[in-house]
Amino acid sequence: MRVAVGQVEPVFGDVAANITMTEAVVREAAAQGADLVVLPELVSSGYMMSSREEAFALAEPAGAGPATSAWKNLAAELGVFVVAGFPENDRGRLFNASILCLPDGTHAVYRKVHLWDEEALYFEPGDLGFAVVDTRFGRLGMMICYDGWFPESYRSLALQGVDVVCVPTNWVPIPGQAEGQPGMATILTMGAAHSNGVIVAAADRVGVERGQEFIGQSLIVSHTGWPLAGPAAATGAALLVADVDVAAARRSRAWGAFNHPVRDRRPDAYRLHPAP
Amino acid sequence: MRVAVGQVEPVFGDVAANITMTEAVVREAAAQGADLVVLPELVSSGYMMSSREEAFALAEPAGAGPATSAWKNLAAELGVFVVAGFPENDRGRLFNASILCLPDGTHAVYRKVHLWDEEALYFEPGDLGFAVVDTRFGRLGMMICYDGWFPESYRSLALQGVDVVCVPTNWVPIPGQAEGQPGMATILTMGAAHSNGVIVAAADRVGVERGQEFIGQSLIVSHTGWPLAGPAAATGAALLVADVDVAAARRSRAWGAFNHPVRDRRPDAYRLHPAP
Repeated sequence: MRVAVGQVEPVFGDVAANITMTEAVVREAAAQGADLVVLPELVSSGYMMSSREEAFALAEPAGAGPATSAWKNLAAELGVFVVAGFPENDRGRLFNASILCLPDGTHAVYRKVHLWDEEALYFEPGDLGFAVVDTRFGRLGMMICYDGWFPESYRSLALQGVDVVCVPTNWVPIPGQAEGQPGMATILTMGAAHSNGVIVAAADRVGVERGQEFIGQSLIVSHTGWPLAGPAAATGAALLVADVDVAAARRSRAWGAFNHPVRDRRPDAYRLHPAP
Repeated sequence: MRVAVGQVEPVFGDVAANITMTEAVVREAAAQGADLVVLPELVSSGYMMSSREEAFALAEPAGAGPATSAWKNLAAELGVFVVAGFPENDRGRLFNASILCLPDGTHAVYRKVHLWDEEALYFEPGDLGFAVVDTRFGRLGMMICYDGWFPESYRSLALQGVDVVCVPTNWVPIPGQAEGQPGMATILTMGAAHSNGVIVAAADRVGVERGQEFIGQSLIVSHTGWPLAGPAAATGAALLVADVDVAAARRSRAWGAFNHPVRDRRPDAYRLHPAP
């Protein structure tokens, strides 16, 4: 299975321009043989909403607005799976959502469970949990940006047998990254891939929007936790492509005769539910 | 609070020699002003047991055998907290355990919840869960080596308000670490510290024992996820010392007006309990 991640810079508020831009990326990825193309969070709208009115104006129903319809048509035309983030308007409720467009013309939606910062002013917390979508390549799952700070997000997918986690994201700088060393978003992504034995395709955006910098460094991580492609540069568009081996990922979750990083869980020993 | 981590090479099967060696490390750390000293997993015995008989011969009741008594006496004499790993014999049940010796002469025991590889032949799975111990510096918790591959271990402690996680460990090589880049154990430790806002002190061993290599790279990680000391070298003994700020860790878990990496959990959205 060939996976592509499109690191791009959307134009805030210009949905038509962002559709044109993402369509070009998906076509280029398909031309390079990609079966799955992942694009960033809120890539149809841009990120830095300043009011609920603005957020509503940029949002659309999943699969029935300009951006999500365009991606669905592309998936069907090119025979690829497309994952991309957009602001969803579900009968007056706004979500920071992503869509998975299947080549058969159907789609699935994920709604960001863990809202970051002022997203809480404009979006409702996701109410669909972490679901997997079965494809001929294996099970795909989605999460968005800050969800990756919660190991529970990856675990919820891993316990459902996910093979590839698609992560549309808009990572912002975290102080402390040393020159030539991985950033914290990279570290969390690699650690989650390793400790769940899952492949992760994280598509970040770049650029500065209304004073907010985004950090790029998109990457495709193998089920071993080591990058197959990227991290990309912190600035500039990039198209990462890597071949992932879903069968190897499933097989290698057996770590010798005794261990399996998902089945070795000990829920009887955990204290996970009480409030802190 | 000053934290020390002693990276050492125990001698397999020679408990007396390992007591002498660890005592010297604790005294040196105390001389450098350490309040807490963390030593590796199974540091009294060595790691590579080849039979249950051998494991039983090296094990001791917590606080009532030669190694754990020696560490308790040291903690009381020097006024420091000492954490170290040892094989525990609890009325015929063997555990891969660690002891936290308090300056007041008391102690707490942790029993490794997630057993790695052939440990399953000699030890029982830990039956005490993940508990915290209150001290004048804050709440301390313990886990051992492979426990760190399970984000649930850190979360179980974080949800109980842990400030410093002490990790006696015997990390083994994981293929794929690139020159000058962090290893997977470092990545998992940094990610867990960051995403829980907790300080982590991980003491690894070095050396080769019965053909098994251990990888050192001990480290003390701040609640931000970035190392305060280490990773140490992959070979050779090392004593890492760092001042940690428990109050800052508690304060900084508020990430702006909207976010807190522990309180933002969404247990209603997770699927954590079903078997895979």
